[in-house]
Amino acid sequence: MTDVLESPTRSTDAEGVEVVLGPNQYGKAENHVVRIARDTARHEIRDVTVTSQLRGDLEKVHTEGDNAHCVATDTQKNTVFGFAQTEGITSPENLLLALSDHFTSEYDWIDGGRWAAEEHAWERINDHDHCFVRSKQEKRTAVLVTDGDTQTMISGFYDLTVLKSTQSGFEGYPKGRFTTLKETTDRIMSTDIAVRWRVNRTDLDFDAVYESVKGIILATFTDHYSKALQETLHLMGRAVIAAHPEIDEIKFSCPNKHHFVYDLGFAGIENNLETHYAADRPFGLIEATLQRKGAPTAEDAWMGINGFC
Amino acid sequence: MTDVLESPTRSTDAEGVEVVLGPNQYGKAENHVVRIARDTARHEIRDVTVTSQLRGDLEKVHTEGDNAHCVATDTQKNTVFGFAQTEGITSPENLLLALSDHFTSEYDWIDGGRWAAEEHAWERINDHDHCFVRSKQEKRTAVLVTDGDTQTMISGFYDLTVLKSTQSGFEGYPKGRFTTLKETTDRIMSTDIAVRWRVNRTDLDFDAVYESVKGIILATFTDHYSKALQETLHLMGRAVIAAHPEIDEIKFSCPNKHHFVYDLGFAGIENNLETHYAADRPFGLIEATLQRKGAPTAEDAWMGINGFC
Amino acid sequence: MTDVLESPTRSTDAEGVEVVLGPNQYGKAENHVVRIARDTARHEIRDVTVTSQLRGDLEKVHTEGDNAHCVATDTQKNTVFGFAQTEGITSPENLLLALSDHFTSEYDWIDGGRWAAEEHAWERINDHDHCFVRSKQEKRTAVLVTDGDTQTMISGFYDLTVLKSTQSGFEGYPKGRFTTLKETTDRIMSTDIAVRWRVNRTDLDFDAVYESVKGIILATFTDHYSKALQETLHLMGRAVIAAHPEIDEIKFSCPNKHHFVYDLGFAGIENNLETHYAADRPFGLIEATLQRKGAPTAEDAWMGINGFC
Amino acid sequence: MTDVLESPTRSTDAEGVEVVLGPNQYGKAENHVVRIARDTARHEIRDVTVTSQLRGDLEKVHTEGDNAHCVATDTQKNTVFGFAQTEGITSPENLLLALSDHFTSEYDWIDGGRWAAEEHAWERINDHDHCFVRSKQEKRTAVLVTDGDTQTMISGFYDLTVLKSTQSGFEGYPKGRFTTLKETTDRIMSTDIAVRWRVNRTDLDFDAVYESVKGIILATFTDHYSKALQETLHLMGRAVIAAHPEIDEIKFSCPNKHHFVYDLGFAGIENNLETHYAADRPFGLIEATLQRKGAPTAEDAWMGINGFC
Repeated sequence: MTDVLESPTRSTDAEGVEVVLGPNQYGKAENHVVRIARDTARHEIRDVTVTSQLRGDLEKVHTEGDNAHCVATDTQKNTVFGFAQTEGITSPENLLLALSDHFTSEYDWIDGGRWAAEEHAWERINDHDHCFVRSKQEKRTAVLVTDGDTQTMISGFYDLTVLKSTQSGFEGYPKGRFTTLKETTDRIMSTDIAVRWRVNRTDLDFDAVYESVKGIILATFTDHYSKALQETLHLMGRAVIAAHPEIDEIKFSCPNKHHFVYDLGFAGIENNLETHYAADRPFGLIEATLQRKGAPTAEDAWMGINGFC
Repeated sequence: MTDVLESPTRSTDAEGVEVVLGPNQYGKAENHVVRIARDTARHEIRDVTVTSQLRGDLEKVHTEGDNAHCVATDTQKNTVFGFAQTEGITSPENLLLALSDHFTSEYDWIDGGRWAAEEHAWERINDHDHCFVRSKQEKRTAVLVTDGDTQTMISGFYDLTVLKSTQSGFEGYPKGRFTTLKETTDRIMSTDIAVRWRVNRTDLDFDAVYESVKGIILATFTDHYSKALQETLHLMGRAVIAAHPEIDEIKFSCPNKHHFVYDLGFAGIENNLETHYAADRPFGLIEATLQRKGAPTAEDAWMGINGFC
Repeated sequence: MTDVLESPTRSTDAEGVEVVLGPNQYGKAENHVVRIARDTARHEIRDVTVTSQLRGDLEKVHTEGDNAHCVATDTQKNTVFGFAQTEGITSPENLLLALSDHFTSEYDWIDGGRWAAEEHAWERINDHDHCFVRSKQEKRTAVLVTDGDTQTMISGFYDLTVLKSTQSGFEGYPKGRFTTLKETTDRIMSTDIAVRWRVNRTDLDFDAVYESVKGIILATFTDHYSKALQETLHLMGRAVIAAHPEIDEIKFSCPNKHHFVYDLGFAGIENNLETHYAADRPFGLIEATLQRKGAPTAEDAWMGINGFC
Repeated sequence: MTDVLESPTRSTDAEGVEVVLGPNQYGKAENHVVRIARDTARHEIRDVTVTSQLRGDLEKVHTEGDNAHCVATDTQKNTVFGFAQTEGITSPENLLLALSDHFTSEYDWIDGGRWAAEEHAWERINDHDHCFVRSKQEKRTAVLVTDGDTQTMISGFYDLTVLKSTQSGFEGYPKGRFTTLKETTDRIMSTDIAVRWRVNRTDLDFDAVYESVKGIILATFTDHYSKALQETLHLMGRAVIAAHPEIDEIKFSCPNKHHFVYDLGFAGIENNLETHYAADRPFGLIEATLQRKGAPTAEDAWMGINGFC
């Protein structure tokens, strides 16, 4: 993004202050596309919400309201639906790649952009050919950031809610004036997993990678006594990178959803870690990144994603 | 509720207007209880949000701020957690029954109330003993309204999202000045099923009833060409009442979630019912009740439930 | 609604169970209409979300999928926008009245329905002629239920969040096994006011009534030491009915939004009712009705409204 | 953040893959603090939701579950409430500064972090001493990122909804295969303004800056014919930077909330830009940055903020 600063548009306001246009993008957000493959009686469904945003030589749109370079957001919408039809939706990632290629090749002044998708999963009702029910365990995400010849693809999901009812503790933390927490070796641990992983190539079976990563994360969640949510995320991330050479980086942003044992001593009722109050706020919030050693990073591509440091 | 009007508290304001207290209730809402059964290494989890509201001789609380009859909402909260511990949560319905019995027997002046629960379902991760993942297909609900010796139990769920990609049409409707819709014999039909059923006894395996009703509704969704969402709801409701003698009434409140075929003719692209735009608002909204012939109704118990006529 | 049961459609299923169609309605929900009056340079804006649902002889739609009586929800949508244009939006209530009159007079078999609106308020930016900013203090609501010749209009609002930082207490409540709450004569009281009032005529300046009722409720909130939220709601409701002869009934559904004094004694810090933790859930929930003595009630019209007993 | 990669923890998994810990932070999110200043009968209220997250030498927490450096999130919560009490809340920004100073000075291994606040505004009811009503026009935000000796403060707000009913158009954009939009010189323009500004010093009256920036943005919205939302954002940003030497950078992320003129020609009704359908999705999305020429940037501090490129 630094090149924006190197060749700025100079806007001189009344007081002589010079203001330059920095990073910017624009487009159409949340195009909700449902694509039915109906070549045979056994229909297939893909359901995605797609956002398209363009970057490039767009300064005059901002500084003069000159729209000669402003590919209308309405046009971007039509294109999203058009490509969903002509290309199909083999994966959210592949649709984003097709859109990026189209926009950057079609318009000279568009040299990049950001395309994002969220997929809503469906499963068949009783293995029916054309009747489906939404499975809502988690939301699948994909973000593609294109900057000239560089493409950064980040897959992921969020809102996968997991809980272990034992084999989690928290001990050994610093004690001080503001510490009131008691140590424990047996507590509920629960979180909504939000995770994104950056791949180092795009000729992938993205659906297969997705299922594998989700499976590894769930399996890792179950396989250890957790001394801290940080440790659990670290184990998850390591396992994913170890199993997937095409993944160079994985980030987690996970609440620690507190479940407090409800003390019923006032009523003479024993509660042996059975009845809990599930609190809403405040909540712990743990964010961590795991990276393949030696692999290049791509920090710019993570901009604008809520809650990933 | 009419007895409230027959023995009103008379409040005479400055202008001589007489105002009477009508239907009222109060309590603690959305107590989020997570109960772990850990008698063996294979834990069981029930996760419910419970609301408790009391009714009875509460006029002086309103008219004088005299709290002698006002069982504190904080006390109701403690009781919810206490009963979750001592009774366990064998079903949302059974917990509500225990709470109703407790409050109406414990306090002379409390002769009824409304107790409601929403259950959040979990399933095991890889059949693990103590690790779970939330399944979010739908939210299970239960409402118990007690009025003296009468108890009305209404089970249900909402937000079960289904879609059929063919075998749905809409024809034969009246045409007039404000009609622009075209008839069709092939469209996507999709809805978020919200449904509630009233049972005529409470000595039930509520979990088994729940699974059966959900299964019947899903199966019925798949088994016919739908001429209108109304017809589909009717078929669902009939099938449920026919299969469940303990259910006297079932109500649906279901959006018609429009999926419009995206016309790509402007770009010379054919779209044969494949690529759709999934609209948010406005949406169709269909509400219908099916009742067992001859069974008594219980309209008061349905008050306060959003979207059920 | 009982007449539905008196002349039922008899559906005999395979097992000989007879199922009858009970209360039902259908239509188009949440038509978001923004109407600009631009006769002069000083524009006026009304912004409403309108739901239209019809009732009447609709049994064959349900039982046979025969749509001859099914005024399409799409047609209802067109009508909402059409009437917004031809009638203007002088108030949400007046738009609903026009829609009700239209549908029940246009179609023989439609003898009633439910029309609802939510208004989003705007105010001028610096008294500008055509630039506005949304004021979001509360959401205004209106519901009109028509049943043959009977029309019931219920105005209201929700989500008006108020707080008093003193002059509220809670004492004198019953103490028992599950009581842990301490009495207090000084606490924060805060709620999101949801209120609905039923008027006994429709030839009203609904905007003026609205502003007056809101003003009375806010003023009453400030004018007394509150011994219970119930008492405060009662005072509000009495004041409204006393001041408004056209209002026969008013219902409140109000959370008690708990603000707990945060005990900082562990750190040797005094906290004299200054620093509070604002909790989300659970929350108190108080629902109450005030009625003009001797006025008829209209319970059916309140069906389907969340949280009003 | 690159220094994390220079001195990584090396985790060697079974396959010999080396994984390093990248950017990470953790803490307690959404501590909802309501602070009443009650030194006199005229109370003052500040209502903020505060998130505290720490950064530093935290690798062993992740790699070994060793919590010796893990200042408990519960301790962070206690500290937030403690400082709200001892320091008061003179502004969200000042509370964040106090928290940052505390944590980085109290713990050797904590050399930075991210503190964020959202403020909920209240206004007096009829100028009352201790009764308030929430004004919800917009949500105020503040983020402080500390990295060793460098502090970056970003103030802002979101969800300020504005609309101009004329003096907006869109013309001159490229036309192509996927273009169906018609040019216009008169349309509604509406957006929910989300804006963040980065200041270059922290010895500020943050409340005064806030009010001024909001005022400039609203006034600028009204003062021109808008040729594109991009142009309007640019004018707003320029005006803010020109008026505020303490602001080096300002970013906008604003939807173009489409209001489509509802064509009623099918019913023979003229609609001269009066009745509009307000669409939900998809929506335009315009993001832009304005920077003071020559001022340093601080891209890392913007990480994790949704929707700001």
